[in-house]
Amino acid sequence: MKVNGIHWRPIQLADDGWRVTIIDQTKLPHHFETVDLETMDQAAHAIRAMLVRGAPLIGATAAYGVALAMRSDASDSSLDAAIDTLARTRPTAVNLFWALERMRTALHNRPPSDRAEIAYQTASEIAEEDVRICEAIGDNGLPLLKEISERKAGNRVNVLTHCNAGWLATVDWGTALSPIYKAHDAGIDVHVWVDETRPRNQGASLTAWELGAHGVPHTVIVDNAGGHLMQHGQVDICITGTDRTTRTGDVCNKIGTYLKALAAHDNGIPFHVALPGPTIDWSVRDGVSEIPIEERSGDEVGILSGRAEDGSVVSISVLPEGSPAGNPAFDVTPARLVTGLITERGRCAASEAGLQGLYPEKADG
Amino acid sequence: MKVNGIHWRPIQLADDGWRVTIIDQTKLPHHFETVDLETMDQAAHAIRAMLVRGAPLIGATAAYGVALAMRSDASDSSLDAAIDTLARTRPTAVNLFWALERMRTALHNRPPSDRAEIAYQTASEIAEEDVRICEAIGDNGLPLLKEISERKAGNRVNVLTHCNAGWLATVDWGTALSPIYKAHDAGIDVHVWVDETRPRNQGASLTAWELGAHGVPHTVIVDNAGGHLMQHGQVDICITGTDRTTRTGDVCNKIGTYLKALAAHDNGIPFHVALPGPTIDWSVRDGVSEIPIEERSGDEVGILSGRAEDGSVVSISVLPEGSPAGNPAFDVTPARLVTGLITERGRCAASEAGLQGLYPEKADG
Repeated sequence: MKVNGIHWRPIQLADDGWRVTIIDQTKLPHHFETVDLETMDQAAHAIRAMLVRGAPLIGATAAYGVALAMRSDASDSSLDAAIDTLARTRPTAVNLFWALERMRTALHNRPPSDRAEIAYQTASEIAEEDVRICEAIGDNGLPLLKEISERKAGNRVNVLTHCNAGWLATVDWGTALSPIYKAHDAGIDVHVWVDETRPRNQGASLTAWELGAHGVPHTVIVDNAGGHLMQHGQVDICITGTDRTTRTGDVCNKIGTYLKALAAHDNGIPFHVALPGPTIDWSVRDGVSEIPIEERSGDEVGILSGRAEDGSVVSISVLPEGSPAGNPAFDVTPARLVTGLITERGRCAASEAGLQGLYPEKADG
Repeated sequence: MKVNGIHWRPIQLADDGWRVTIIDQTKLPHHFETVDLETMDQAAHAIRAMLVRGAPLIGATAAYGVALAMRSDASDSSLDAAIDTLARTRPTAVNLFWALERMRTALHNRPPSDRAEIAYQTASEIAEEDVRICEAIGDNGLPLLKEISERKAGNRVNVLTHCNAGWLATVDWGTALSPIYKAHDAGIDVHVWVDETRPRNQGASLTAWELGAHGVPHTVIVDNAGGHLMQHGQVDICITGTDRTTRTGDVCNKIGTYLKALAAHDNGIPFHVALPGPTIDWSVRDGVSEIPIEERSGDEVGILSGRAEDGSVVSISVLPEGSPAGNPAFDVTPARLVTGLITERGRCAASEAGLQGLYPEKADG
């Protein structure tokens, strides 16, 4: 999507055709800075230090990391070392392992002299596939916003979203935000209520930034505010992303998603979840009881960073000394609260039948 | 309640019997500092600059402000000027006006030579009445926690609360926290999940501090986390305060309360609201449609203050430049989501019949 009118992706090749330019997301929303990755180690660092985040973007960055390794040393041992190093950057990222295995399959039986070219090509395919999936999610979600706009006679469509499921988390378009960009670009008057999404504030720092950079009207709210807005007719639809979706349509997403789904349900507001098919976990039936929820450091609750008066970025502690903090990172929204799922193959009910209709090849088991 | 083992109130007379010692709540949770008020103007400033906050505490501070004025000049014009100045400190605080009218009634027909003594006595009565009301709320809420403790065979009782409805907001005991202090002091193993309560963080900065100061086990969580904890059996009961309660039992409280009530309802967890009878608004039937909600400055969302590494308190901006923020300050929880009300006269259902049973003198109209 765009930053100040220029099309950007969070990962793209530099003009020289081999360096990999990423947006340093640790600097957002206060500074827009890019970094050119020249080595595999730099790519590994970018993932580890979260200059890039979001499952699809991590996968693409790792793939390009292998390409950078092959460019400097295309031997078997270099390939193994690159995959090994990159696989250890973020221990729980499924996309990461998947992308690296795909790179290994594409490269391991090929002569070293061909490997750099094949690696760049495969990395590019991984990235472009993600773009196609995300754009298709946008196309499939767009009619939801179009219908609301028509029902409201062209008046503003108010969407509420949680966390960041935008182009910064993918290679382009995003998931939950993709239909919003499609609607905005199609001239629909769309406005987004952006949950700040404590504790890590991805809404306030990433979603608000990327919507603003592309020119989409939006308003940041605290996570407490959405229920009140829904009670008063100020939200027409909720769209969020998901980290993991069960075969029955339960949605595991950033902590707090469940509370917004409850409020939407209580007020008769549609609550949709956007996802790439590959993130469906067909092995899980009951999200609430079966999905273990990561408990992260309490420091994420107690320490915040932001822009000081002099423009520098500083960290502050907001808790009393000695008060502990709990920090469950995700929650599960039961399928009964989800109006529908938006995938690259179309929309469906949040149910086993709905998902199997779109992904019949997964219907067994 | 206690701070480091010593009994403190957020407002009390100094040892000299005339100065008024307050806790400077703007310094919490990072520094515990007290201020001795010696003049009416200092009392007015303490309210205006929010060194004291919470409706009952504001009322008591204003009353003592009048007493300080009478001590230095007990003339009619001094009395009128003091009441006029103090009434303009916080424009929407009902307790403030009520306390000042009570001071005027007590003083205006009395000779100036008696006024200082009468003013101190009346201010003390106002303060002590609040303490009695809050302590009675604690006594009436205590059985709820005792029953849970017994059902759990003495295992830890987990209470979730939102915002600050503790002793710092009243003259002592608090409202929602009063049953918790009663339970803790009675030896019940009680632990409190403290919602940080964005945007002003009264949970993280005030509730966590006062619970910690009194020695009550607690854990701060982001406002997003409570629903997940309730899904997983980690919350036995929710208790919040309320700024305004309708005659039908709808509860207007800090933004986000509604979301927690929805989650409690979805998980079969009791959701109780503690309130002093005088805060019931018998003129309102439908809280959601009738109570106007204050929209406060977006700066409260975008700017946070906390403790820097060197111990100083600094402010930071957390939003992208140019991203607007919305900030509704309260929301309304419909009575259907409230399990019960805890008042100084006892507990009742959140309904017109329930409230009229406790306050039969208000049953008309």
